[in-house]
Amino acid sequence: MPDVDPEEFRRLGHAVVDWIADYRAGVADRPVLPDVQPGWVREQLTPTLLSAGLPEEPQPLAGLLDEIDRVVVPATTHWQHPGFFGYFPANASLHSLLGDMLSTGLGVQGMLWATSPAATEVEQVLLDAMAAALGLDASFTFAGGGGGSIQDSASSAALVALLAALHRSNPDWRERGVDGTERVYATAETHSALAKAVRVVGLGKQALRIVEPSPGSLAMSPDALAAALRADSEAGLRPVLVCATVGTTGTGAIDPVREIAHAAAEHGAWVHVDAAWAGVAALCPELRHLLDGVELVDSFCTNAHKWLLTAFDASLFWVRDATALPAALSITPEFLRNAASESGFVVDYRDWQVPLGRRFRALKLWAVVHGHGLSGLRAHIRSHLALAEKLAGQVREDPTFELAAEPSLALVCLRVVTGDGPESDDRATRTVLERVNASGSAFLTHTTVGGRYVIRVAIGSLLTESSHVDALWESLHDEAAKVLANDPDDRRDPGHSGSTHV
Amino acid sequence: MPDVDPEEFRRLGHAVVDWIADYRAGVADRPVLPDVQPGWVREQLTPTLLSAGLPEEPQPLAGLLDEIDRVVVPATTHWQHPGFFGYFPANASLHSLLGDMLSTGLGVQGMLWATSPAATEVEQVLLDAMAAALGLDASFTFAGGGGGSIQDSASSAALVALLAALHRSNPDWRERGVDGTERVYATAETHSALAKAVRVVGLGKQALRIVEPSPGSLAMSPDALAAALRADSEAGLRPVLVCATVGTTGTGAIDPVREIAHAAAEHGAWVHVDAAWAGVAALCPELRHLLDGVELVDSFCTNAHKWLLTAFDASLFWVRDATALPAALSITPEFLRNAASESGFVVDYRDWQVPLGRRFRALKLWAVVHGHGLSGLRAHIRSHLALAEKLAGQVREDPTFELAAEPSLALVCLRVVTGDGPESDDRATRTVLERVNASGSAFLTHTTVGGRYVIRVAIGSLLTESSHVDALWESLHDEAAKVLANDPDDRRDPGHSGSTHV
Repeated sequence: MPDVDPEEFRRLGHAVVDWIADYRAGVADRPVLPDVQPGWVREQLTPTLLSAGLPEEPQPLAGLLDEIDRVVVPATTHWQHPGFFGYFPANASLHSLLGDMLSTGLGVQGMLWATSPAATEVEQVLLDAMAAALGLDASFTFAGGGGGSIQDSASSAALVALLAALHRSNPDWRERGVDGTERVYATAETHSALAKAVRVVGLGKQALRIVEPSPGSLAMSPDALAAALRADSEAGLRPVLVCATVGTTGTGAIDPVREIAHAAAEHGAWVHVDAAWAGVAALCPELRHLLDGVELVDSFCTNAHKWLLTAFDASLFWVRDATALPAALSITPEFLRNAASESGFVVDYRDWQVPLGRRFRALKLWAVVHGHGLSGLRAHIRSHLALAEKLAGQVREDPTFELAAEPSLALVCLRVVTGDGPESDDRATRTVLERVNASGSAFLTHTTVGGRYVIRVAIGSLLTESSHVDALWESLHDEAAKVLANDPDDRRDPGHSGSTHV
Repeated sequence: MPDVDPEEFRRLGHAVVDWIADYRAGVADRPVLPDVQPGWVREQLTPTLLSAGLPEEPQPLAGLLDEIDRVVVPATTHWQHPGFFGYFPANASLHSLLGDMLSTGLGVQGMLWATSPAATEVEQVLLDAMAAALGLDASFTFAGGGGGSIQDSASSAALVALLAALHRSNPDWRERGVDGTERVYATAETHSALAKAVRVVGLGKQALRIVEPSPGSLAMSPDALAAALRADSEAGLRPVLVCATVGTTGTGAIDPVREIAHAAAEHGAWVHVDAAWAGVAALCPELRHLLDGVELVDSFCTNAHKWLLTAFDASLFWVRDATALPAALSITPEFLRNAASESGFVVDYRDWQVPLGRRFRALKLWAVVHGHGLSGLRAHIRSHLALAEKLAGQVREDPTFELAAEPSLALVCLRVVTGDGPESDDRATRTVLERVNASGSAFLTHTTVGGRYVIRVAIGSLLTESSHVDALWESLHDEAAKVLANDPDDRRDPGHSGSTHV
């Protein structure tokens, strides 16, 4: 037998499980960010993998674990660290790991119902059940004529939504492609994945309309949207898709979905709601308002692999018309023809995505909801909301800082106030971020709001507790105090700090 | 701590490892195909997950494993079964599972170098080392100005190749999109992923030129390609990409890469080589000829997740110009800006793919080459070649069968010969396939060659040994003998057999 013997696999698998348990148990003691320069990993691996070439003979597992300890762990940003506040959380809970192991252990391909009926139907059932748990309208479930799927990412969800919209807006699209009159609507705060999707589908940047926000807000103005749609329609252009975001990446802004849906409906445009980060919070009844108006749109996406404890990749994507994606995407060569598909009684998930192959991703989501229960998932979300609320209160009460936007769920955006004007504030804010990151105890990323530099604190790592947010606040406060004490080193342009990490 | 405690995880992780070891140890004793009708899985899960809803409270792992035993395993096509001869193999070796566990255990996001330097550089090093092991030209390595990446699938590799080609052929593409003059060239045997990519990028089916094969072959005719390119260029159309396949899905046909590259070069078209299944065989020096001419093309793809023992998803994709994909795909919002990216010294793999997020896929490939060694991987490939050669010899010597195409590597295409003409042969061939599949000991899929129904025997499952191919041949022979004995049940139209599996 050329593979490792199943009995030997028990020994090796237990060793890897133990390695992971040790890594997770100790992750909080490491600096969140690695201290390596570009090329360090390559240099470390050159003697073993490049100069000597890949090994000719099988090597014992211990050697691989040693290499991972020696080269990988010191050069890894520790996303599961309790001090990880960057980007959005990407929780890979140990429960989800168990489910993912089962998926790879089974080793099935879920491209067609026929290639693994269980992979398809478990995903359908879980997405229907998750829709109910989130309070999504029943029309998004298979039972209600729509349906859900697990995409690899919100980027891919936006892409397939746009492809379905292009097909719906023009029956000739599959034959003749795009014609240059298509238009897509978003805001400056919409995730860049939408602009990338617009590029990928051949529309070019010219097709992307950036709709203005409502005054004093970062959320899309329904009036501005309506005006843009009307102007384009009158000019002979075709509004194809409007992307509304529930919880933007920059500041967590929430577009007015209901008003957007009404404006889009007049022009037959597909409405896609990107709630990649925030959507899962609707598991909590008191946050169900996040889905206001979603019952009117065409597609909805939220990522289990951000705040919902499921290891990447697991982006949950629902449509209200189960035929929309297959109509846009299906191409059936002879070697994929089968009686089940032709019966019309099954879902072939290959037609819901661009790639043909697909993993049995539903198992990791199942393992998460099974292992945590809805009550555990809600407690996880609520604990981060409480931590964010406390942090925002501290920011409000400290004259050294100000909130750069109203806190949104567990995302707090703040900046340093120097009293010397915006440029000085921006420099100070950036210096504080770099110093906190250099401390190793926390990792922050930034954005800009109205052209101003802003620190984002995205709370949501699985291990993050009150003590970690308290320590972060202390660190932010202390670093800001040093900057405000006017040490010349702290005021110089931090762009020259040489850090490659932030 | 809301996640499972690391110490508790040891216990649960060991239990899951043991479950997998048991599953793999017993997989050969199961029927390859499940005996379930559409809806059976849903029905089984309705009381627990749909009617009752997702569990409110955390549940013990044992309950999940019980559900998988009760509902998933009986409804799964067993891709890791030694009698799996369908499609192409999708080996998820236990070594690759160990690497995949480590990936999820680390739980890092590899979208930017800065978000996990190790995830990026290990992938770069491994792809450079794998290029050397395959005998790919050094210009495909990062050291040589090109570079490799791990895509989720050959479908996505074809898509990003096409996007890079569109950008190279038209500097206005990112701004203005496609203009309808673009043309893409392939054969009727090219994988449907290319037609899907052509549709996705907004060109429509009209842009896809199906180039004729050389007489008496299923491989692209370089003369026909040259003529098509010339005719389109003269008509003011723009040849953007030619896809050459090394090992087509239907019959394993091999397009003449060198001649195709020469013909395309005259018109500046990008040449992408799709060697999804066959390419990894070039690890064997005696099969290095599979890569003849690849040194002249722009991009090359082969799947580690088919024949190279690495669990899906792991499609290895190289380009000869490391700037081509970022130039086509990069869009940088403020929240992704970082000093390392701006230094120009690092690769940000998000710019090599459509999704933003990405797993640390290189670990599973590393675990495979570490655990098997190149000698083990070559032995694996050579053993399947020998089994295919033996089977092809048996087909040649048996008047009941004929080869539908020359065997290609480990793929043997055959049909039943009834002596009553093509329609009778097709019906008999289909009946034999269905009966073999119904036996539970083997799983075959079909294709058509010249409109004729053909059984494909794709040898390559990790556990497949001589005895399994011998048993398959016996089964094929016996079922064909029954059909030829003219039992009326065997001659009727098998389309009404009611099977939903094939």
